[in-house]
Amino acid sequence: MVVAVKQNVSEEKLNSLVSFLKEQDINVHIVRGQYQTVLGLIGDTSKIDIDTISGLDIVESVMRISEPYKSANRKFHPDDTVITIPSAMGAVEVGRGFTIIAGPCSIESEEQIIEVAEAVKKSGANILRGGAFKPRTSPYAFQGLRGEGLKLLLEAKKATGLPIITEIMDERHLDLFGDVDIIQVGARNMQNFELLKELGHSKKPILLKRGLANTLQELLMSAEYIMSGGNEQVILCERGIRTFETATRNTLDLSAVPVLHELSHLPVIVDPSHACGIAKLVEPMAMAAAACGANGVMIEVHNNPEKALCDGPQSLTPEQFDQAVAKIKRIYNAR
Amino acid sequence: MVVAVKQNVSEEKLNSLVSFLKEQDINVHIVRGQYQTVLGLIGDTSKIDIDTISGLDIVESVMRISEPYKSANRKFHPDDTVITIPSAMGAVEVGRGFTIIAGPCSIESEEQIIEVAEAVKKSGANILRGGAFKPRTSPYAFQGLRGEGLKLLLEAKKATGLPIITEIMDERHLDLFGDVDIIQVGARNMQNFELLKELGHSKKPILLKRGLANTLQELLMSAEYIMSGGNEQVILCERGIRTFETATRNTLDLSAVPVLHELSHLPVIVDPSHACGIAKLVEPMAMAAAACGANGVMIEVHNNPEKALCDGPQSLTPEQFDQAVAKIKRIYNAR
Amino acid sequence: MVVAVKQNVSEEKLNSLVSFLKEQDINVHIVRGQYQTVLGLIGDTSKIDIDTISGLDIVESVMRISEPYKSANRKFHPDDTVITIPSAMGAVEVGRGFTIIAGPCSIESEEQIIEVAEAVKKSGANILRGGAFKPRTSPYAFQGLRGEGLKLLLEAKKATGLPIITEIMDERHLDLFGDVDIIQVGARNMQNFELLKELGHSKKPILLKRGLANTLQELLMSAEYIMSGGNEQVILCERGIRTFETATRNTLDLSAVPVLHELSHLPVIVDPSHACGIAKLVEPMAMAAAACGANGVMIEVHNNPEKALCDGPQSLTPEQFDQAVAKIKRIYNAR
Amino acid sequence: MVVAVKQNVSEEKLNSLVSFLKEQDINVHIVRGQYQTVLGLIGDTSKIDIDTISGLDIVESVMRISEPYKSANRKFHPDDTVITIPSAMGAVEVGRGFTIIAGPCSIESEEQIIEVAEAVKKSGANILRGGAFKPRTSPYAFQGLRGEGLKLLLEAKKATGLPIITEIMDERHLDLFGDVDIIQVGARNMQNFELLKELGHSKKPILLKRGLANTLQELLMSAEYIMSGGNEQVILCERGIRTFETATRNTLDLSAVPVLHELSHLPVIVDPSHACGIAKLVEPMAMAAAACGANGVMIEVHNNPEKALCDGPQSLTPEQFDQAVAKIKRIYNAR
Repeated sequence: MVVAVKQNVSEEKLNSLVSFLKEQDINVHIVRGQYQTVLGLIGDTSKIDIDTISGLDIVESVMRISEPYKSANRKFHPDDTVITIPSAMGAVEVGRGFTIIAGPCSIESEEQIIEVAEAVKKSGANILRGGAFKPRTSPYAFQGLRGEGLKLLLEAKKATGLPIITEIMDERHLDLFGDVDIIQVGARNMQNFELLKELGHSKKPILLKRGLANTLQELLMSAEYIMSGGNEQVILCERGIRTFETATRNTLDLSAVPVLHELSHLPVIVDPSHACGIAKLVEPMAMAAAACGANGVMIEVHNNPEKALCDGPQSLTPEQFDQAVAKIKRIYNAR
Repeated sequence: MVVAVKQNVSEEKLNSLVSFLKEQDINVHIVRGQYQTVLGLIGDTSKIDIDTISGLDIVESVMRISEPYKSANRKFHPDDTVITIPSAMGAVEVGRGFTIIAGPCSIESEEQIIEVAEAVKKSGANILRGGAFKPRTSPYAFQGLRGEGLKLLLEAKKATGLPIITEIMDERHLDLFGDVDIIQVGARNMQNFELLKELGHSKKPILLKRGLANTLQELLMSAEYIMSGGNEQVILCERGIRTFETATRNTLDLSAVPVLHELSHLPVIVDPSHACGIAKLVEPMAMAAAACGANGVMIEVHNNPEKALCDGPQSLTPEQFDQAVAKIKRIYNAR
Repeated sequence: MVVAVKQNVSEEKLNSLVSFLKEQDINVHIVRGQYQTVLGLIGDTSKIDIDTISGLDIVESVMRISEPYKSANRKFHPDDTVITIPSAMGAVEVGRGFTIIAGPCSIESEEQIIEVAEAVKKSGANILRGGAFKPRTSPYAFQGLRGEGLKLLLEAKKATGLPIITEIMDERHLDLFGDVDIIQVGARNMQNFELLKELGHSKKPILLKRGLANTLQELLMSAEYIMSGGNEQVILCERGIRTFETATRNTLDLSAVPVLHELSHLPVIVDPSHACGIAKLVEPMAMAAAACGANGVMIEVHNNPEKALCDGPQSLTPEQFDQAVAKIKRIYNAR
Repeated sequence: MVVAVKQNVSEEKLNSLVSFLKEQDINVHIVRGQYQTVLGLIGDTSKIDIDTISGLDIVESVMRISEPYKSANRKFHPDDTVITIPSAMGAVEVGRGFTIIAGPCSIESEEQIIEVAEAVKKSGANILRGGAFKPRTSPYAFQGLRGEGLKLLLEAKKATGLPIITEIMDERHLDLFGDVDIIQVGARNMQNFELLKELGHSKKPILLKRGLANTLQELLMSAEYIMSGGNEQVILCERGIRTFETATRNTLDLSAVPVLHELSHLPVIVDPSHACGIAKLVEPMAMAAAACGANGVMIEVHNNPEKALCDGPQSLTPEQFDQAVAKIKRIYNAR
């Protein structure tokens, strides 16, 4: 970390800052220029809050040189992390090859989830997704089948052999997730730090979605919360950020994929369904994700023959999904 | 809610949509124009997910006419809500007059919190704030004194008679909040819906901070989560949103104050300290908040004579706070 | 356009609004519901300012159903527009196949521009780009070689046969652009309406870059400025928008590609170099652009063997570009 | 400027960077730490493009310590700039006391502009605004009365003695602005650098509006374009930025007022009408602007008794304006 001090700061104040830093086990190298005094901080600066320092009266500006995350940092872990999910069909490796996660937004009935599971398995999906606990903006909207939904998802796992992923919204529900293969942390809970800490003590792989207003560095810091607790099996997920554009529900930030690969060794999955909110965009954006190096995609698929009209607006039908998988694979193989 | 249907949609598909809506107890009024068919939805449309409808293949666009929140809606509750906090010094009324909440970002020691509490009380603060459970981006940063900090805050309440407010990060900690006067939900938990539901069963006033990427409508929907559970004592808090500007930590959206007052009857507090992240901006922005109709402000004050240098960058000293209160009151009285 | 009127509006005010609309040749269809009165506006509503209507005291909300752009609208022009650029090497067709535009950010010398031009031609570029007039945030930064730079670019065109594209910043410079093949309007001038009007009278193809804070609808409205003047040869260019994320210079919004293709018949080019500002991201994001349906990419290439260090940070070397083109084509062909 | 170099960079590459900097008259001070090499750049770094340096392969990160603007910088000009506008009623001083600019969005007729001018003068406005050249998103919308409108505005100046301000959209129109007192540069032209350069040669005060996606530093750099050309009479104007929030047209960033006052000596005006787009918010936000230190406000006022309904949605009536001025002055005087 480099700290530039304002001009004409008293020696006393400067010394006070230096002592404060030394108390925190930071070595301080002072460089006095003609116009500027600069402090070079050497040691474990990850404990130093950059906002606190930069807000000090005597400080002009601060620049962090080493990243504040360690376990997630590629510098200390050059090889890609591969997360192995055992399954009745053999192990699924997230971070090696291209992983396709698919399933309905909400689990509605046993018939529905098993039908979709069988369809996506046939098309080449590796992991089944399905929402049991649903984070909804409105308290009046359907909140998911919750515990009951989880049971139906486990039925679908049994029926198809597909490993499953589903979202947790409260650490008090953890007991119910014993047979879930990957636990998802949704965008709205990316900075629910108490939940992240609890998941750090879990042995299960965690898929961590980027918050709507969170930087990639913050995403990695949230991964760090889980990893520093002892659980190193974190999968990062880009799902769109909030911008001024209204043509899509959120703005899918695909540059996140190569940026995250450079900063971290963790696998990166892209969720085009939630990012765009429009079924027609799912296929092209999933293809783009495969082209720029994502380790996989997560796609909403819904099968509702009798009320086809009322599918989720961002869901593909099994037929559309089947077609999309073929195209995504062509792109992945052409890289 | 008004739904505009695409041109050349088949009668069958249109009927299917109409049936789907009617199943949800919505009356549908069909208007066929030369170029456009429009559906007028009458009934309780707050259960209808606007994204689901607007994403349907046959739908051109959707416009919500009645707001999806009810308990928080001024239309059904024209008078301002006043929340009364009993205290050893007499009742504090949030929503009547101008409420000043002040105190340190983190509780550090008994001496510190009592000293600050006495100082802010003397300057005219009505409520004491202090962080015990601290949401921090980094797992390596100080996480607050937690339960121990809460005890110290209660000591300060006893010593000064000021009612207290502090943040909750996990519903499992609720037992510790028995003697807390107002429970704060931080920006990062604004859409932690399980926490909101739990607080809906509490009898305590809740101060709900706007999330960094959340619209005012979403803030009101989160208030609705608490209110629909039975707890109508919600205080809204504007604390800055995330934008591209980097000169301030966040962008304080003061227009939120008159907008929220128009949409809702709940009191609105402004937190200029967290929004700006720079001590110098706290006084002018608190004055601006008073000028545009806020029901109060929440200000960080820190007292640390021996290491004055290392105060939080956004904290005022007790002297600066004393001066700021005088100016804020002048502005409030001039309205 | 559908206008929802507030409850309890007087007949007099409602009639006044209806008369105002009729004066503008709009037919108004009034639908009175139990709780809501809705006006259906029929006719050419593209002249109606939605902000003016929605801001009226008696109006609850407004929804535009037909898009306010016509010439750029796919509804009235279902087939893709192909823009043919004649060249010494045969015609280049933007909108058919995949077009690669490449060259240096700034033209620096005859040697530089010709060397780069030859290199990118060999690697498969179809069009040469080079900046003569440079929009720079600082008045103290290099402003480009301006008229002199344009001459050097024309030399490179002569030497290689490649058609050329370069940016215009002022309609007073139009005379200098007589031998330029495509005129570029930069992001900062996307809403320089006087410039757009002038270009509407030009016979040259225009590449119109999306502004940093502009929606896709605004981009199409700016295209409409040019097209309504008589020049229908507009190429749209996505080059990143401004968001809170700082890991990349801007956030490349690739969803813009399929969205623009649905709304408009105009070709869509992606500029990953300016969007990301980091050379390493150019190749993966160009591949992603090809995967999601872009009609081409625009890539910065710089050749500076003796001061390789000081290349633009977002420029590829000719070797990197050569490799990138091969990969981009593989992706394009795999679609 | 401080440049942190990556670990394990070769001496050769480091020397190449140092030479490149020295060629640009920058002195380089090299600090070698155990883990990090840092370069301190001393001299006029305003010519150095921070993006170019930070994008170099060998550079870890860059921090600018001295601001890239000089003429606009308070460091070199500690006293507030006061801009004197002579007028038939005596001089108006922008930057001393509180300036109120008011008038209609568009000039529509002689009767209208004179009536509004007289009304706002009576209520205490110091300067008359009125749009002749109108930047409109749609080419089909009313583009203003243009030259004809300017003439009507000059009539109103003659009739009332109020100095006038109006927007320029094209440097080719400058001749028409001979009797205009302040020339306005709109938000969409804040980075129309050729226009700014031209205005740098003008002798007239320029009111420069912040662009919708522009940082405060970029606003000051655009001011610098005008000032470095010789015209030091620049008035800065905050008018809202583009964010994800849709409850207001833009998000008024009032923190910009104290931030700009700290960074620059130029006067700062706030335009609440365009920022919010809703008449009801104009009064409270203008009061907030006065409270946080703005040097004035610019407010839309429209007088249209016979079609009151169709006023601009963000315009105040003369009566509302009269009331607002009284409240704004009370706030200003209470500071």
